[in-house]
This record gives sequence, C-alpha cells and structure tokens, in this order.
Amino acid sequence: MKGWNLIPLAQARRIARDCAEKLPRHTEMVDFQQALGRITAENIINPADNPEFDRTTVDGYALIAGDTVPASTDAPVRLEVIGEVRMGHQAVLRVQPGQAVRVPTGGILPAGADSVIMQEYTRRSADGGLLIEQPVAPGQNIIWRGDDTPAGAVVIPAGRRIGIPDIGVLASCGLTRVRVVKRLVATIITTGDEVVAPGMVPEPGQIRDVNSFTLSALAEAAGCETRLADRIPDSCTGLLDTLQRAVAESDLILVSGGSSVGDRDFTTAAITAISDVELLFHGVSLKPGKPTLLARRENTLIFGVPGHTVAAMTVFQEIVEPTLAAWQGMTELPCRIAVRAKLGSPLRPDRERDEIFRVRLETNGNDLTAWPLPAKSGLITVMTRAHGMVYTQAGQPELRVGDEVAVQVLPDRLSGPFRGVLQ
Amino acid sequence: MKGWNLIPLAQARRIARDCAEKLPRHTEMVDFQQALGRITAENIINPADNPEFDRTTVDGYALIAGDTVPASTDAPVRLEVIGEVRMGHQAVLRVQPGQAVRVPTGGILPAGADSVIMQEYTRRSADGGLLIEQPVAPGQNIIWRGDDTPAGAVVIPAGRRIGIPDIGVLASCGLTRVRVVKRLVATIITTGDEVVAPGMVPEPGQIRDVNSFTLSALAEAAGCETRLADRIPDSCTGLLDTLQRAVAESDLILVSGGSSVGDRDFTTAAITAISDVELLFHGVSLKPGKPTLLARRENTLIFGVPGHTVAAMTVFQEIVEPTLAAWQGMTELPCRIAVRAKLGSPLRPDRERDEIFRVRLETNGNDLTAWPLPAKSGLITVMTRAHGMVYTQAGQPELRVGDEVAVQVLPDRLSGPFRGVLQ
Repeated sequence: MKGWNLIPLAQARRIARDCAEKLPRHTEMVDFQQALGRITAENIINPADNPEFDRTTVDGYALIAGDTVPASTDAPVRLEVIGEVRMGHQAVLRVQPGQAVRVPTGGILPAGADSVIMQEYTRRSADGGLLIEQPVAPGQNIIWRGDDTPAGAVVIPAGRRIGIPDIGVLASCGLTRVRVVKRLVATIITTGDEVVAPGMVPEPGQIRDVNSFTLSALAEAAGCETRLADRIPDSCTGLLDTLQRAVAESDLILVSGGSSVGDRDFTTAAITAISDVELLFHGVSLKPGKPTLLARRENTLIFGVPGHTVAAMTVFQEIVEPTLAAWQGMTELPCRIAVRAKLGSPLRPDRERDEIFRVRLETNGNDLTAWPLPAKSGLITVMTRAHGMVYTQAGQPELRVGDEVAVQVLPDRLSGPFRGVLQ
Repeated sequence: MKGWNLIPLAQARRIARDCAEKLPRHTEMVDFQQALGRITAENIINPADNPEFDRTTVDGYALIAGDTVPASTDAPVRLEVIGEVRMGHQAVLRVQPGQAVRVPTGGILPAGADSVIMQEYTRRSADGGLLIEQPVAPGQNIIWRGDDTPAGAVVIPAGRRIGIPDIGVLASCGLTRVRVVKRLVATIITTGDEVVAPGMVPEPGQIRDVNSFTLSALAEAAGCETRLADRIPDSCTGLLDTLQRAVAESDLILVSGGSSVGDRDFTTAAITAISDVELLFHGVSLKPGKPTLLARRENTLIFGVPGHTVAAMTVFQEIVEPTLAAWQGMTELPCRIAVRAKLGSPLRPDRERDEIFRVRLETNGNDLTAWPLPAKSGLITVMTRAHGMVYTQAGQPELRVGDEVAVQVLPDRLSGPFRGVLQ
C-alpha cells in the first residue's frame, strides 16, 4: 500500500515485547489488602509451615487408629475420654492407648493421637466410655503441620496478577506486605481538530472524544496509572510540545489519531521529532489497525494508534497489552478462550492484511451462530455489541454461511495453559 | 445427615434469588468516567443521532456516484475539484454534477455528494482536474447520520455491568452522567475463637483470619461496598450484638464460621435471635458448603457461610453471587465457560451431596488433562492452584482416569448467551 511498509502483527508484537522486556521494572511493597490486581515482583515464600500445627478437620475424638482396628457395630471398641481440646488453645493432654480426647473442627491434635473419628460415628456408654463402631485409618480427618504449604515453599510465583484467592493465601501465611511491580505511568494523548470533550455539544463536523476514556481504562486494567493530556488539534508543534512533557513523566505514551500517512497526520512527524527517539515500526498488516507505530525514547515507549475507536481498542488488545505484560514481568499471561461457531453471514477477509472481525453470538440449539458486525470505520457501538472476535489471514478465501469459525470470546481474562488448545 | 435438612443447591439459589429480586434497589447518577463496573439502572438512550452528520471514512474526494459510472483506467472521468472540507468544520460547498470536494477521513460530507472515492484511486490532471479511474457505488466510504445509533435507540440496556466499550459509547453519545444501581453495603463477620488477625503470630491452635479478606474482595467484585466487623469469638451474645448493629447499616451480612450444628456453632442461634428475622434455609446439599444458611430481616439478607475458606468461596460463587446479581437487577449474567478435559486421577463423588472438585489443567498435545486437587477441608492454597472446577451429582458413579469431564474455567466473568452450549 501507498506509503506503507507494513509488518505482520506477530512481528510488531515481538518487537514491542522484546523492547519492553529490557526496560527497567520498579517494585514496591504494598499491604496485602491493597494488592488485588497487582503483579508480584518476586516469588512469595511461605515463612512458616501452614498450618503451623496438626489440625483436625471434624468435630470428634482424637485417638490412636490402631485401637479401633477390631471395632464393629456388634463389637464396639471402648475408649476412655480423658478430656477435650479447646478451640484456639494448645492441647495439654497426651493420648495413650485406650484413650481419646474430644476435639473441635480445626482444633489442634493432641500429642499421641494419629487420627480423629467423627462424632456421629461414636456413642457414649452408660458409664461415660466412648464406643467406637468402626475402624479409623491413621491420618484420617487430620491436616498435618505444613500439609497445605511447608515453610519455604513458593505460595505465589513472581509475575502473577494477584487474584482474590491469592489475597486469602497471603492472609493465611501472615504475609501482610507483598512486593509488587510499581504501576507504569501512562499518558494518553488524543489528537484531532474535530475532537471535542464528551460534555460538549459537537458543532457540525465535530465528534466527541472517546479514545481518551477507552484507552485510559484499558491501560488501567493492564496495570498502569493513567493521565489524560489535553486534547490536541492536528498540529506537529503542539503535539511535539505535549510529547516532550509527557516523555519526561511517563513510562508509556499512547497517541491516538494522526498516525497514518495523510496530509493531516502529524503524529509520526511529532514522535520522530522527539530528541533521541528511535522508531521501532510504523504500519502493521492488520485490519483494523494499520496506522500503528512504536517508538522508544530512553525508558519510555510511545505508541501511535489509530484514531478510530474500534481500531484503537484492537491495537491495544493485540499489541499494547502483551507489551505491558512483558514489561511488568508477567509470567502467567491472560488466556484467550475460543469457541466454535457457524457463520450466519459471509466474511470476506482482507486481501493484504490479517483481519479481525467482531461478531455477535447466538445460540442455536446446541450450536452457536456467529454474526459478523458491520466493520465500517468509525462505528462505535459495534464494540459493545460484540461477543467475540474472528481472526482471518490476509488473502484467505471468503468464508461462507455455515462455515465453522473459532470465535475468541471477550473479555479474554482467563489464566492458564489452555491457549491454543481451545482454539 | 444428623441434624440437617439439606436442600438442593438449585433450590437454595432459587430461594435466595426470589427473595433478593423483591428487595428494594436504589439508584444514583455517576459520572461516566466513574461508571466502570457499575450496573445500569435503566436503559441508556441515545439522545441524538450518532454520528450527528454524514461522515467520510477515508481521505479522498466527495462526489456523485453516477458521475463515475463510465470510469476506467483507459477512459478516466474528469471532475472539477471545487474546494475542500476542513476537519471539524461545517461543509459550506455543495457538490453539483461533474464536481468533487476534497474530504479528510472523518470529515463531514458536503451537500449533494453521495459517495467518496479514496485518494489513491484518483490522480490530478495537468490542468488541475481530478481523474477517476474506477466507478464508485452510492454510499461508498460514508457513515450516514445515525448509522451507528439513531436518536432514541438503547445504547446500553438496563442491568448491564458497564465495561470499557460501554464507557466509550457513553462518551461518544455525550452521556456524561449515567444512572446506576447504588452499591449494596455488605458487612463481613468472621467468627471463631481460634482466628487471629493476619499480622499476628498465631499461638498453637490459632490460625489467621482469611475469610474476612476473601469474602470482602468477592463482595466488592460483585458490586458491594464492604465493611469488616471485628472478629468475634464463638459466643452467641457477642455475635448477636454485632449482628444487630450490622443489620441496621447493611444490605447484606456474611457471617463465616459457626453455621454448622456442633456444640460451638452459635451462628444459627445468633441469627435466628435477631428480632423479626426469617430463616429461609439452613443446610445445602453441596460439598463443600453444607453449613450454609440464609435469613432475611426486613431489607437485609444474612448469609451464614462455612468457616473453611474454600467452602466459603464456593458458597459465595454458587449462591451469594447470583443472589447479588438478581438484587442489582443484572440482566446479563456472567457466563461460565467449560472446557473438556480427561481426568488424570480418579474422582469419587460424594454419595449424598452434589460436589465441586477443584482441578488443575495441563495441556497434553491437543487435549487437556484435569488433575483433581486435594479437597481436605481447611487447605487454602488449593484455591490458588485451581484452574477450574468439576461438578458432580450426589451418588454419581466414580469417575476414572481418562474419563472426559467438563471443567468450568475460573474466573467465570464472560457475558453472553453461551451458558449451556459450552458445557
């Protein structure tokens, strides 16, 4: 295409990731209650056995399993109850052969005992003895010290986005402070003579700013602290001024609009005019998303993304997000899950670029039907109507009604090793 | 089982949902930038056509399609360029037959024109004329006024959790304030003589509080504003005092621990001692999760959930979360996605209760293997190691190595109509 030297999406992603991985990554300690969604900066090590004592898992009696071997309903074994363990307290009694100690669920196992029988499988004799009507196996109804996690074990690996279960594990291990990756500071710059604030009534020819808000929300979801720069008209010097200020205080800059090669596309010129800047690529063989560029200036990455909202979001998800994941040292990448569906209307893949179609899914008995949404540049509500995306290769033959396609379901926030398998 | 009158999970869920649906739902207006994750309280209506003018989608020339019908490379059609449309400004020119107007991507379409040709399919003649070498279809490269969404259309339905694309649509429509469901106030109460704060070093027999933090994080993710009550020892009067205070200021109360039927289980007694309280159920045929109860006192719902962390989280996901969704009027429920996997080790479903096993998934060529995680009551790290869950029915035969199971993948935050289809 005229004026372009497009690179494949995979190459763009690789260049961006390789670059980001080498950039410095700062860390900080945060309280575990503020750690949800943050990324661990190191392996989190369990400081002590968890649990720290042998623990019962049922209400019942702690005893020696060997004592119960001959027990049956007809010939119960009789044990002497020598006392009880109080919840939350040390067990002071020692169980000897022929003895049992009353224990609560979660209580400490008294010394000498090797198992616990549930209360409902016992009864008391007239003289206060404990009658056991079935044998118990050694270890039954006990969690041994360190059974959950021994001291020194990694409870949360480095590079994980901390989820709710991780918060629970931090609490249980007494890890009230945790080292996480410091948030990257992202500045969002929206350009365009026609763009006005959402609160304004647009004059004819004007439209409201969307990208400032979608891109900053995406950047925040990907782990950044974001700042919105003032909207900038299409002018090289105005944009360069804003960029120079943003470079000084940002790790990441996202400029939307003006990154194409038209008369009014000043973004590339402004970005390449920053002193000591290096242009890593300009133009990706992706539809939507062609006018995407990446530059680096010292430890700041600068992405130019398309002005069209759907294209900007697509580029964020396909290129910027994996770059941020690499930068933050994420070892567990979000898994994208795809489902199989039959096309409800034909798809005509672009001849020269890989294309991403947004589709709506409909259930059809036990099948799914995928309806491609209109892809006209500039449409916005297509974003909110889409249930997923269909990826096609450049030059791939037209897909017909009824053809099976893999639909990558949105949002793609699942972790694990499934990638590929579910495609 | 002794002392229990268990109801099926589906029935517990239904009772809770039916009750919650009838409770009052309050709403508030919030700024669209603060609306992410909130639930729309009404259909959000587009106040004006979007876009508000006929808009070009490419850099090129606006013209009358009929003029280009005979155009070919050999016999180009010649048009007169009468001026240009400036980005973000009204188009003052009117296109007459034989004429064209230069237009930027996203610019307003001048009156009289019905299509736009891309700049790269034109050239200028020596005398300044515009040579067109291929015909253009009416409507080509144009988004008509209201094409995205006409005035009066619902852009976001009531009961949706507002996502990032929705934020974009609100901005584009100038809907800077949006009516959402007011957050429910949830109080989390953790009981147990043995439970100490995460920052404490537990004495023998003590354990650190986990549920306060996991349950409050779950409640926040489900749309609540949460408060942690002081931890309470196992005592009916202490718990009743705390409950009375919490009832006055909460929509939802979650009490963890003490809801079983043992000697030290005071939760049921305390909850039923609240004046004018109605016990809706106590005991669910679910493993883990049996000692679950629900009570209602005027407009407050009170759940008793198991003290064991994994059981408490399970009950939250299976019962509390759908209840909160109903209460908040959510019309688009989170979709749970299941994948097929082969068991790596056998599963022995409980005889009397439906059971939920947590599993770890492993890729195995193009297949997945599911490894059941140890389910001993009291283990905590199983939560962080699980990739998904396998549901079994009470009394279902043992599942063997290699048997295919549906694994519901965590986290289950996908929207749409897929539920069931993917199982």
